[in-house]
Amino acid sequence: MHLFLPPHHDGSALYVPTRTPRLGEQVPVRLRVPGPAPEAVWLRVVEDGEPRVYPATLTDTIDDEHWFTAHVPMTNPVTSYRFLLVGEQYDGGQAWLNGEGLIARDVPDASDFRLTTTEPGPAWARDAVVYQVFPDRFARSAAADQRATPDWALPAQWGDEPIGGGPGTGTQFYGGDLTGIEEHLDHLERLGVTTLYLTPSFPGRSNHRYDAATFDAIDPLLGGDDALASLADAVHRRGLRIVGDLTTNHTGDAHDWFTRAQDPASVERSFYYWTDTAPGYVGWLGHASLPKLNHNDPALQDRMARVVTRYLDAPFHLDGWRIDVANMTGRQGADDLTHEVSRRVRSTIESVRPDGVLIAEHFHDAGVDLTAGGWHGTMNYSAFTRPVWSWLAADSDLRYVEMPSPIPHRRGPAVVAAMRDFGAAVPWSVTTRQWNLLGSHDTPRIRTVLGSRDRVEVAAGLLFTYPGTPVLFAGDEGGAVGTNGEHARVTMPWSQIEAGGGPDWDAETFEVYRSLIALRAAHPALREGGLRWVVIEDDAIGYLRETADERLLVLATRAPWAGAELPASLGTALNVYGGAELGSARALPTHGPTFQVWTLG
Amino acid sequence: MHLFLPPHHDGSALYVPTRTPRLGEQVPVRLRVPGPAPEAVWLRVVEDGEPRVYPATLTDTIDDEHWFTAHVPMTNPVTSYRFLLVGEQYDGGQAWLNGEGLIARDVPDASDFRLTTTEPGPAWARDAVVYQVFPDRFARSAAADQRATPDWALPAQWGDEPIGGGPGTGTQFYGGDLTGIEEHLDHLERLGVTTLYLTPSFPGRSNHRYDAATFDAIDPLLGGDDALASLADAVHRRGLRIVGDLTTNHTGDAHDWFTRAQDPASVERSFYYWTDTAPGYVGWLGHASLPKLNHNDPALQDRMARVVTRYLDAPFHLDGWRIDVANMTGRQGADDLTHEVSRRVRSTIESVRPDGVLIAEHFHDAGVDLTAGGWHGTMNYSAFTRPVWSWLAADSDLRYVEMPSPIPHRRGPAVVAAMRDFGAAVPWSVTTRQWNLLGSHDTPRIRTVLGSRDRVEVAAGLLFTYPGTPVLFAGDEGGAVGTNGEHARVTMPWSQIEAGGGPDWDAETFEVYRSLIALRAAHPALREGGLRWVVIEDDAIGYLRETADERLLVLATRAPWAGAELPASLGTALNVYGGAELGSARALPTHGPTFQVWTLG
Repeated sequence: MHLFLPPHHDGSALYVPTRTPRLGEQVPVRLRVPGPAPEAVWLRVVEDGEPRVYPATLTDTIDDEHWFTAHVPMTNPVTSYRFLLVGEQYDGGQAWLNGEGLIARDVPDASDFRLTTTEPGPAWARDAVVYQVFPDRFARSAAADQRATPDWALPAQWGDEPIGGGPGTGTQFYGGDLTGIEEHLDHLERLGVTTLYLTPSFPGRSNHRYDAATFDAIDPLLGGDDALASLADAVHRRGLRIVGDLTTNHTGDAHDWFTRAQDPASVERSFYYWTDTAPGYVGWLGHASLPKLNHNDPALQDRMARVVTRYLDAPFHLDGWRIDVANMTGRQGADDLTHEVSRRVRSTIESVRPDGVLIAEHFHDAGVDLTAGGWHGTMNYSAFTRPVWSWLAADSDLRYVEMPSPIPHRRGPAVVAAMRDFGAAVPWSVTTRQWNLLGSHDTPRIRTVLGSRDRVEVAAGLLFTYPGTPVLFAGDEGGAVGTNGEHARVTMPWSQIEAGGGPDWDAETFEVYRSLIALRAAHPALREGGLRWVVIEDDAIGYLRETADERLLVLATRAPWAGAELPASLGTALNVYGGAELGSARALPTHGPTFQVWTLG
Repeated sequence: MHLFLPPHHDGSALYVPTRTPRLGEQVPVRLRVPGPAPEAVWLRVVEDGEPRVYPATLTDTIDDEHWFTAHVPMTNPVTSYRFLLVGEQYDGGQAWLNGEGLIARDVPDASDFRLTTTEPGPAWARDAVVYQVFPDRFARSAAADQRATPDWALPAQWGDEPIGGGPGTGTQFYGGDLTGIEEHLDHLERLGVTTLYLTPSFPGRSNHRYDAATFDAIDPLLGGDDALASLADAVHRRGLRIVGDLTTNHTGDAHDWFTRAQDPASVERSFYYWTDTAPGYVGWLGHASLPKLNHNDPALQDRMARVVTRYLDAPFHLDGWRIDVANMTGRQGADDLTHEVSRRVRSTIESVRPDGVLIAEHFHDAGVDLTAGGWHGTMNYSAFTRPVWSWLAADSDLRYVEMPSPIPHRRGPAVVAAMRDFGAAVPWSVTTRQWNLLGSHDTPRIRTVLGSRDRVEVAAGLLFTYPGTPVLFAGDEGGAVGTNGEHARVTMPWSQIEAGGGPDWDAETFEVYRSLIALRAAHPALREGGLRWVVIEDDAIGYLRETADERLLVLATRAPWAGAELPASLGTALNVYGGAELGSARALPTHGPTFQVWTLG
């Protein structure tokens, strides 16, 4: 069996050389057809709500590959298109090619390719590897010993197992602080990550601080404003970046805005949704402790803009924001203001930091929200985390965030179809800025989900070779465990890390992560290249990542499989990860689990 | 082989007893699972942008069918939901059920079921059978002989073959008029149709009149305002309805608004989009003769509202409008006002005619536009016409409207998948008001597309038994032919019709249409019932239409097929169309083409 090489298009430079088209521009788009040429190829574009069809012309035939070119008139700010291939090789004589692949029937527009006139997030964000830190659990400086434990807190010893549910879950307090993070930046550099993402640093009455009591100051328990300014400065001196975490959906009920809002005559009164039933206002998912913000109010818009800019300006100079509960922000009953909120936060960021980044928390289908011109990307649970888990997960009762039943076991074709389907509607310029992740402070740890180091290597291999920005939760690189989001917020075992390993620190996994991060850094195609799926089997999936200058073949297996032969047209293969050389038969390895990467050419 | 009986849900009363939910209401939704019960069933709802999951409980087990019930909180004006079924019978241990059916992988939200707080179109529209008339070609009264041929017109004799393309296509003039239609209403009643839909009656400089020169009067060539008032009155006296055709996307360049708009100081100036390049304004698809309207202008909005109401009021009393080029109206470059336009036209109609109907021309995926609360439905080319053509079409070079290549030949599974996929996002209350059709003045004639009377019978069978409002183009019922929209605008051969047949009038086809219309009228389940696909084979497709009171089985074949057995749980079968009794083996007929309907129970 040869690799699967169907007709292909994606938004990468090989197929769409124009980066950010202007309204009205004619954008060349290219289609690649290995094997027999179709009789005809057409481009279908929806313009001002009307489907139009244009011929695509055969512009090149190279190594048995036919390249067709057509032009998308950039009629609307977001313009969608797909290809029609005509020929006897397609069932029924013709087939559509959209973001889901080749489909031999008529299809709605949901999975069409999309071009947008909106600038993507900054280039550094595309090339970043993001390291998520939960401040209470990363590192504790000497200064922390001088601080009084707050009244709401349940003190814990560094190394204690986090409480996963019930009393104490939100109040168990380890006392990690920003100075502690600054003292351990060497660890980030050793690993090779380039961006530090901090979950909230505002004062609250919980260990997670998503219940902000104010947005006007950094929590004194973390060292206050000075500690954040010092940390950000240290990060930048190392050539790294730092991103904060802001909740635009709600505040804590102890927030100064909400306190003032109790006065019906206050400016802040209209910042919230008031009701006739207890507790008298709308809370996030019904929680009275988290009153929902009402973005209809221009005064709130101004106030929020001041928060957004305060931390991007001196002395903090944060490089952008991750927005908590972004999928709900501005959405309440008949109000649907989320696209306006996202565009306003973006333009506010751009007004002070043109290279600032803006990432949305989003647990489900983000396609519609990602073409609104606001968020640069989302935490890509739906198109990455969840499919990868369902392919590699061990038999267990672990659950995906929102789900009531254990993680399902899916075969490769179902997993690849889900990844393509969720990604189809997303413009490529956004795809390369999506925050891909294997877990976060809201999920079980990937090591616990997959149950073994070798499966984690396969998952991490996908993470660091897939289009988008890889994000890891601090501790993943040492095999941290945890059965749900709260239980996964373990402290970093610094003495074991410094000793080169221990019961809570798997040095071999660290080496896997370090090597994969270095691989990504060494190969631009892993960051900018197109994505062609070429192995879609129950127990093996694989893809090509390609630019005009390089081509890499990525193979991930979860178990032994039948294997496939690399066609001569793809040239010689040199292994760059995993160690499997192909030999003269050009046969892909059939064992599993394994993760392998070759450069081709 | 038995019929295919998978788990099922749709928006009909069997599964969603609430008709139009209010915001905040808890809406019960029911799931039917034939065969082994799942271990658990969950309902997933997206609320304020967040997926929530609720348990569904087993409420009934009847004849080996398990019924589960859950409640959708109507959190947003359009609330989407789907089911999760857990059990070993599903690949990977769990599967989603959405509008496309059962899918054993994670899926985006595009095909979720949807409930809307928007009232559906009137009940009479759901129960209607619509008869489309192109006034120039239906019938010519004696008064027409007294009218001068207009300067733009190329006179034609009744019965001449229409020019399908090139010079004369738009100007070939037969002189049919509204009085002629009034004189032939007996024909409509014989056939059994209930609603007359007239393509435009405004004056223009073409035979199709989509280039309106004014919206303030009915074309004198058709008999003027008096003739429309008289026709409408005659229609209503017979208990029938009449719907007009209005273009909100553009006017003709001879339109009085456009004439006045040449003065930069005029009120009408801002009704159009002016440009620096020839011809100086935006025309529909680049046609200078059809200047595009700019719905940003409140003065245009008022003016258009006056047009909408003028013909719903005395003396005309039209029962609603079909909106031409609705998919483009309000869409122009960075402007996307189509949902506002659709809601404004609806509220204008409702202000004078609470039971008025509003149908949009729409040639492609209308899912997004149909949840905006404007159009009651669309001309359902994408989810009905096109799939049916691609399953039944003869080998020919005929093309679907926008397409550059001949109609593809699709197998049953691809056809059913397309029908479900396009329909999935549409609320059921809209589905039952969609204008299903086999062709129109914009397409080849169904008889020409399919090539034979027996295949037309299969197509018409689907038309009159599928959820939605059946629409036929006058002449279809007599086997009219035509190779494209213009060529299909044939005159009605009245002398042959009155003689009971002739070379241009197939009396057997008339009987097929008449019988199928009567069948639909006799069975509420064909109008209101749910839709369960139970036969999905290459050459045979079939479904159940069900209410609490009756169940019909519909079978359409295009060629001989392997057949299937009706399970005992579905009860006895009584043939009500097509004549095939099942016999003691309960075997569905295996010949084809054929169209058959049975009542079960």
